[in-house]
Amino acid sequence: MTGSVNLYLALIHSPVQNKNGEVIASAVSNLDLHDISRAAKTYGVQAFYVVTPLEDQRELVREIISHWTEGAGAKYNPDRKDALELIRAVDSVDAAMDEISGNGRSRPATVATDARSHPDNIGYAALSRMLEAERPHLLMFGTAWGLTREFIETADYVLSPIMGPTGYNHLSVRSAAAIILDRLLGNR
Amino acid sequence: MTGSVNLYLALIHSPVQNKNGEVIASAVSNLDLHDISRAAKTYGVQAFYVVTPLEDQRELVREIISHWTEGAGAKYNPDRKDALELIRAVDSVDAAMDEISGNGRSRPATVATDARSHPDNIGYAALSRMLEAERPHLLMFGTAWGLTREFIETADYVLSPIMGPTGYNHLSVRSAAAIILDRLLGNR
Repeated sequence: MTGSVNLYLALIHSPVQNKNGEVIASAVSNLDLHDISRAAKTYGVQAFYVVTPLEDQRELVREIISHWTEGAGAKYNPDRKDALELIRAVDSVDAAMDEISGNGRSRPATVATDARSHPDNIGYAALSRMLEAERPHLLMFGTAWGLTREFIETADYVLSPIMGPTGYNHLSVRSAAAIILDRLLGNR
Repeated sequence: MTGSVNLYLALIHSPVQNKNGEVIASAVSNLDLHDISRAAKTYGVQAFYVVTPLEDQRELVREIISHWTEGAGAKYNPDRKDALELIRAVDSVDAAMDEISGNGRSRPATVATDARSHPDNIGYAALSRMLEAERPHLLMFGTAWGLTREFIETADYVLSPIMGPTGYNHLSVRSAAAIILDRLLGNR
């Protein structure tokens, strides 16, 4: 499709942290799937991986997708179909990486997102330039209170947090994903 | 608060259009309130007006706010409290305008948002500069299938639609509001 880029998204439900910093598996939220897939479609993302080790949660994801991509939902709102078709339910980031690098393609570079600053953050302009290269990139978002520090340390890059003019930075993952895609790929 | 700007948001539930272009009053969505108030707080917006002529819907808005700003919700998640406190339930855009211009302050300039292009659209850089002036601005978002053409024609300005690199532009109002605030006020 016109305007597509070599970028993939992953929305991670485990390992993430709860409010007390404990490692948990969060529940899939219907609206995360809708909002983030629509933003992904808008900005030309190749695929949107919904990552959860829980089989019943992956089944729920597949049911939601199928409601909107087949039958009544698809007929009622074809724009939703186009967006939700980007979603793949997988049990781990490794499974997403394997799928992206299948058929002899390069293994993607991983980019973690976090509301906290890290000493070696990569900025938006630098990442945007990297997306013009041939190597695929997998941009990873945490649900609940975000990706764990241990997980973030395994990523190739950590994107700078979104800052507005205030000190408050408690955006929803849906809002953060939309803003980050726009900063990386928007025509303004 | 540090970093606040002379900008107000309105999320409009009537008049908006349904999928067939008919004028309707849409239902308030809990997640619109959460996501948009958190983005508003991040970018230093003064207040977030939730506009609906239906009294039971305004009552629902007040109940949601009160859950998170008083009692258990406020204790459980004070960051939500800070965001949801920005919300005011009003029956019309005029009521929001009256409140903003109370106590002898200037009447705000109104800025409509729309996924469609208009011949006299204002761009993001131009509006961003205008927000540095003393006059308040009210940025208006439509729910459902968006603001009606008739309503948009009453606005002082119509902001350019968000375009990514594809032809697809079916963002949720939550994503659109986040991206627009970032384009106008984000530090990148």
